[in-house]
Formats: sequence, structure tokens, C-alpha cells
Amino acid sequence: MTDIAMIEAARGRLSGHARRTPLLSSSFLDDIAGRRIFVKPECLQQTGSFKFRGAWSAISYLPADVRAKGVIAFSSGNHAQGVALAARMHGIPAVIIMPADAPRIKIENTRAYGAEVVLYDRAREDRDEIGRQLSSERGLTLIKPFDEPLVIAGQGTAGLEIAEQAAEEGITQASVLVPTGGGGFISGISLALEARAPGFTVHPCEPEGFDDVTRSLASGTIQKNATQSGSLCDAIVTPQPGTITFPIMSRLCGPGIVVTEDEALHAVALAFNRLKIVVEPGGAVALAAALFHGESLGETVIAVCSGGNIDPDVFRLALDRFAA
Amino acid sequence: MTDIAMIEAARGRLSGHARRTPLLSSSFLDDIAGRRIFVKPECLQQTGSFKFRGAWSAISYLPADVRAKGVIAFSSGNHAQGVALAARMHGIPAVIIMPADAPRIKIENTRAYGAEVVLYDRAREDRDEIGRQLSSERGLTLIKPFDEPLVIAGQGTAGLEIAEQAAEEGITQASVLVPTGGGGFISGISLALEARAPGFTVHPCEPEGFDDVTRSLASGTIQKNATQSGSLCDAIVTPQPGTITFPIMSRLCGPGIVVTEDEALHAVALAFNRLKIVVEPGGAVALAAALFHGESLGETVIAVCSGGNIDPDVFRLALDRFAA
Repeated sequence: MTDIAMIEAARGRLSGHARRTPLLSSSFLDDIAGRRIFVKPECLQQTGSFKFRGAWSAISYLPADVRAKGVIAFSSGNHAQGVALAARMHGIPAVIIMPADAPRIKIENTRAYGAEVVLYDRAREDRDEIGRQLSSERGLTLIKPFDEPLVIAGQGTAGLEIAEQAAEEGITQASVLVPTGGGGFISGISLALEARAPGFTVHPCEPEGFDDVTRSLASGTIQKNATQSGSLCDAIVTPQPGTITFPIMSRLCGPGIVVTEDEALHAVALAFNRLKIVVEPGGAVALAAALFHGESLGETVIAVCSGGNIDPDVFRLALDRFAA
Repeated sequence: MTDIAMIEAARGRLSGHARRTPLLSSSFLDDIAGRRIFVKPECLQQTGSFKFRGAWSAISYLPADVRAKGVIAFSSGNHAQGVALAARMHGIPAVIIMPADAPRIKIENTRAYGAEVVLYDRAREDRDEIGRQLSSERGLTLIKPFDEPLVIAGQGTAGLEIAEQAAEEGITQASVLVPTGGGGFISGISLALEARAPGFTVHPCEPEGFDDVTRSLASGTIQKNATQSGSLCDAIVTPQPGTITFPIMSRLCGPGIVVTEDEALHAVALAFNRLKIVVEPGGAVALAAALFHGESLGETVIAVCSGGNIDPDVFRLALDRFAA
């Protein structure tokens, strides 16, 4: 189980490889929200999302002889890029299994980070079977996206930074909002803040229609999303909370905050205008919650922007609608 | 005259008020340039540009009784916003004199930072006369945009950060590229690096047709721009190098690098795609120089992105053309 010692150890391994992202703010955003908003822009992390932290944490922990054989991951998104770059920086092979109909740019980016991309047909092939076969043939180690203590420990290093940066600002109480899919990021952050900033509360943020974590926390049992496709917030859509992350979230987080897709796009445009950062819709749901659903929150909110891997067309859409 | 002691003193005054911007990189950019590129994103600074550093440095240095009467500045751009916010954070009045035909968003932003905006008619009124009259009536102190030792010292604090961040990366030799208008920013950075990273060279970067600094350094005498309007890189277009900044640049910088407006827009799009930051065209000329004119540079380039206050329409243009 991940604990603060594991997160501190992960930070040691990440040092000099992951970025310490800054804490940003803008009085324009404070005025909209009616409270102080700070933003932790993990879109500025290596590969454009926090996923690099967890990937590095897991890969760097492997025994050298195991690591040398390489790693494997299933992902068409930010986890794929995080694993690919972390593997390349370790000088080891990475195999990423992606659906053949994944956006070409994501396939190309993952390849450009040095990974071998294996495509499969979603309708006719079993990706787990493909993964098992490749792993056993080549001795690859699977790097899971969220339900893995070492990955959670890596994501938690962002929580250590939040605790330190908030202390520098003199903040002793805050609501920390985190875009949440499977729950690895918010679990790591919550564990770090439990130890280093116990006055803080942590809230998962999700898009309308894909609010499995919010419903799971409210009901006390794991709830699923009705569908996994059709959201602009694709980066944080997963079938359901993880079996490792759900108990951590139940103990340390909640309640969840749900935002509309329009609110997420509005937050993307405001982050462009007021913070000069590029955030993808899924990565902007916590900022949207801080801006438009802050009623129940305290005077100080820290919104994590979890990623910035957005297609230019979607970014244009946000500008067209909300940055006139 | 600005020296390293003044820059260190400015850093002390800025501490806790200005941001320490991170140092970013992307292997995708390295591949385009054929060398290692690091980016110092001053677009993430308060008010979206480095100008806040110099404004804070000058305002915070004033004797309390003088400061309390307020400050005045002439600017329709980034300097206006930097002075306005630095004044508000000091709790003092700021008057910004802007042409009546300045973009409405810039007028509104400057007002939103708490400044009193005085508009004048470019064709029929003398802004200097308006400024003199207001200053003498109210006892306001003029904060010059670049030709002022305290402002140069404030801008130089970015140079101290570059020296430290480069050392953390193990960099002992680098070409540092800086978008340059009047020369305050590059003068401060050069003075800081002369003392703290003497193995570094510093190059001003400018857009084609507005390359007064490059020509001035090449000829050894101050050269003017033929015109000041018509550039998408408006943020860094000034009539000519300053009388204080030119000798500093002559001693410590050069040669200049000139990029096309298309190259600047291309750099804006690449910064969006690969670094997840929002950069305005004038702020992107150094990144453009690193990407497309690196032949004469060393293996490691540090490109400063000086600002991110870009209109959505111009940003869309960059995406349309270079982020297909």
C-alpha cells in the first residue's frame, strides 16, 4: 500500500527527471470564482501530463535486470506517452498497445517517444491476450495506469509540491480539486496531503455523464460509468474507480464535483487567457469546478490542471465559444 | 548603472511577489532544432510577461512617501499591465496613458488590474505633455519601460533564475536567446549571466523589418526602425535601442538573430503543441530563432519566451497554419 514514505522515495527517484511545476494564479480568476484560486499546471509536466510521474516511479523502482527487458502498457492517451518517455530515458524498450482507431497524432507521439506501438482491432481482438503473449515472450513488465501502489506514489509527488508551495503562500486551509478518472492521481495527492497538509480537503472532479467516482463516493460502493465514449474529457474517462484507489478515495476524499462539458471548455479558454497555459478539457474539470461550483468550498481553492494534450480543433472550439 | 548587486537586491524585493518560472523542454523541439532547447516561459509570469519584474523592482525601490503618491506609465501593452498590478499589490494608485485606439481588451485588462487609464488621441495630443501635467499635479513617479537601471535590475532577476536552473541541468555553456525591443530585458539578463554564468552567450532576437537592435549591434551605432506598426510581434517593437541599454548590449550581447513573422507564428504553434504554453508572436521570436536559425549556435540553447498576451484571433491563425 502506498504511504508517505513511498511517496517521498518516489520523489527521490523522480528528482532531476520530472519537473516541479509552479503554482499559478490570476486575480481575474479569483474575481470569477469569488475566492482565491491557485492552479497546479501539470500540463507543463514532461509529456504534457502528470502521468509521467507515476510511470517514472514504477519503472525506476524495477530491479535493473527486470527493467532491462522492457515494459508494456495499455493506453491510447497520456499514460502511453508517460510510459514511453520514462522508458526511453531509462534506455529500455517500451511496448504500448493501442486500439487501431486511436487518433493518429497520439500514435505518432507515442512512437516519437521511442515506444513500439502495437495496434489491435477493438472489435475483433483481445488486447489483454495480446499483452499477455508479448509479455511472456519478451519478459516485459506491465505498468498499470492507476491501480498500482508505485504509480500512485509517483502521482503523489505532485501532492508534496502542492503542500510546500501552499505553505510558501501562507495557506493553511484549502480545498484541493483534482480531475479524476481511475483515481491514481487523486489517491497519491490525498495521501501526500494527509501527511503534509492535514488542513486541506480533496475533491475529485468529473464531467457530467462520467461521474463514476462522485457516485461511488456518495454511495459507498463502486459505481460504473454507463458509457466510456463521447466525452471531450476523454483523458479522465475510465470504466470505474480502481480497487486499490477506491478505498483511499473513500477515506480521504469527497464529495465529488461534477461539471458540464461547456464549463470544462470555458475553463480551457480562461486558462489560455489568464494563465497562459494549454489545458485539455479533461484536465480542466477541476478548474471549472473551482470557477463555477465553488459555493461549498472554502476561501482558498487549489485546482490541479492534470494535462494539456488537446487537439488543435478542440482548442479552437474552446476559444470560439469562450474567448471572444 | 545596473550591476549584479542591484539585480540581487531586486530579487530580494521580488521574492514572494514575482513567480520563479520553470525551465521547460521537449524532445520534439530538440529534434526540429538539431540541438537541445530549453525554454524559460515568462508568459507564466504575473500579468503574462516579464514586465512585472521590472515594474515591481522600480516601484518597490521608491521611498514610501514618494511611492504613496502613485506611479505613471506610457504603454498600451505588457508594461502597462505589469505596472498596474505591481502598483495595486503595493496599494498605490497607477495612471497608465494609452492611445485611444489601443485594443479594447488591453485597456480593459489594465483597468481590471486597478489602474486609472487616461486615453489620448495619437494624431492630435502629445502624450508626454499629458503625462508631465498629471505627474506634476499629483506627484506621480514615471516608471519607464526599459531605459531605467531599476527596471533593468528587475528584468535581470530572470537571468539569475536561468543561471541557477541551467546549473541544475548541468549546463555550463549555452546560447541564450531573448526577444528584444528597447533592450531592458536582455540587458538585465546579460548582466546577470555575466556574473553568474560567464560561459553563456546572449543574442537578441527580432522580427524581420523591426531589427533595430541587430543592426545597431552590427554597426556599432544606434539604428532606428523604419516603422513601428504592422507587426504581429507588436509587443517587442520599439523605435530604437535605449541610451542606457545600448551600451550594455554592445558590451555583452550579439550578434542578433532575425526571424520572419511566419517563423514566429510557427513557434507559437509548437509552444502550444509541445510545451503547453501560450506565447504571443513577439514573445516567440527567440524560440523561433532557436528552432529555425540555430546553425551558428552551440549545442544547448535557452530561448526565453517573454510574454503570452495574445489575441485569440492571432492564436487561431498560428494554429490554423502550423498545428494542422
